[in-house]
Order: sequence, then structure tokens, then C-alpha cells
Amino acid sequence: MKKSILAAGVALALGAGVASTAFAQVKPEILVKQRQAVMTLQGKYLGPIGAMLKGAAPYNADVVALNATFLENLARMPWDGFQASTEGVKSAAKPEIYKNMAKFKADADALEAATVKLGAAARARDEAGVKAAFGGVAKACGSCHDDFRVKQ
Amino acid sequence: MKKSILAAGVALALGAGVASTAFAQVKPEILVKQRQAVMTLQGKYLGPIGAMLKGAAPYNADVVALNATFLENLARMPWDGFQASTEGVKSAAKPEIYKNMAKFKADADALEAATVKLGAAARARDEAGVKAAFGGVAKACGSCHDDFRVKQ
Repeated sequence: MKKSILAAGVALALGAGVASTAFAQVKPEILVKQRQAVMTLQGKYLGPIGAMLKGAAPYNADVVALNATFLENLARMPWDGFQASTEGVKSAAKPEIYKNMAKFKADADALEAATVKLGAAARARDEAGVKAAFGGVAKACGSCHDDFRVKQ
Repeated sequence: MKKSILAAGVALALGAGVASTAFAQVKPEILVKQRQAVMTLQGKYLGPIGAMLKGAAPYNADVVALNATFLENLARMPWDGFQASTEGVKSAAKPEIYKNMAKFKADADALEAATVKLGAAARARDEAGVKAAFGGVAKACGSCHDDFRVKQ
């Protein structure tokens, strides 16, 4: 009934990775800039939810729903920027990514799935569900960063 | 019937601007980085649609639908980063923004509306509609950049 447009976008995202990069004679420096831009925005929209969940800010279900919807979209954006051509560009991405693409892809999928849960709970104004799903998102971030990001 | 989750996000976005910045003891440098990240990603997802529409790449309706959905979300993300506190941070944003917030807000609204049309046409796999809506998006970008961005 409420088949969402966003869900359509999500379904596409899973299959469209190759197609998206088909145009891509994109310079490695641009690919890195684009994927870092996604990480920056993930931080922007995760931060306030985290602050609300730990009581540092009043819980605002509308803001959580909006941020979670943005995160659900953002979680699909970085991956086509991780191409072997970018290995020479300075960034926090470890070369292990390109040696273990299966694990990296699994981590990416885990984040996407976790943000789908977060988005659904947030739009349902289900605060307990948001709390649970947020933990899943944080875990997915951490798992990938542990293996594939240079310690900050 | 098909009330979309994305549309819900959009409706919220129009009202949530103030709430979003309520948490924001965000440093001006971070605000600039975040809004520039949005612009970077708008370029990422506009570029391939533009290339397809001018025949430089084969038209792929699935990629267009995905990119347009991302753009519909991204178009809502930059505005809360334009705060007077950022005037001292080096960027291409002109100080005119903060002297003419009504015009800037109207330009922001125009981009949001144009990307809603683009997203709808793209998800309907309506290539002619995409072409028309893309023109509207490009016009909205240009109008705002003409007045409020330092010439590149």
C-alpha cells in the first residue's frame, strides 16, 4: 500500500552500482572528494540523533525522521567512490579495501540495511525502535572503520 | 495511495529548518564544510543526468531515477549551513546571502521544488519530463549562483 518512492530508490541502488560508474571517467581526486562529502553529511545527520538519544538534546521526532531519511539515502552514496584508481590519493581509506572487497561490500550492505531500519522506525515515530536501529547504524560504521579506515 | 516516505521527508524538511539548527553550536568551519559537501554531491548526481540528456552517455532510466531521488534529498541539505557565523570562513558564498535572505530562501525553495519535479518524472520513467524538469533544476542552480556565489 505505502510502497515508498524512497524504497524504490533503495532497490535501485543495490543494482545500479555498476551502471553509475559506467560514465565514470571521473578523476580519482574527485571520487575521493565525493565519498568524503558523503561521510561529512552522514556525520551531520547522525550527530543530532545521537545527541538526542543520549539526552544531550530534547528528542524531536520530526528532526529524527528527516535526518534518518537523509541517512538512508546517504548510506547508498559513497561506495562507487572506492575504486582502485584512488589508492594514490591521500585519504583515510586503507588499501585493505581493494584487497578485501567482499568484506568491504558486506560492511556497505550492513550500513545500508541498518539505515533502512532507522529510517522506518524514525518515520513511524517509534523512539524505542530508533534507539535500537541507531545502535545498528553505529555498529555498521564502526565495523567498517575498524578494518578499512586509518585510525583518526 | 502511494504516499511516499520520501515525500514525507520532503514535507518535514520545509518545516524543520529551525529545529535542525537548534542543536547547532556547530563551528562555522564545519557548517561550510557540510554545505560544500552537499554541493559536491549535487554535482555528482546531476552530472550523469546532464550527460545523458545531451547524448554524451546512453540514457539509463534506472540511474536517472536513483540520481534524481538523491538530488531531491540533497537539495534540502545545504541551507542550514548558511549562517551569518560563517561569513569569516573562506568560501565562494557571497556576503549578499545574509543581506538578502528572502531572495536566497526563494532560490532555495525553487531548487527544492525543481528537484521534486525531476524526481517524480525520473521515477515515472518519463524521459521527456526528466528533460523538462532538468532544465528547471539547472535554472534554479544558476539563478542562485549568479547572485550569491563568487564567479568560478
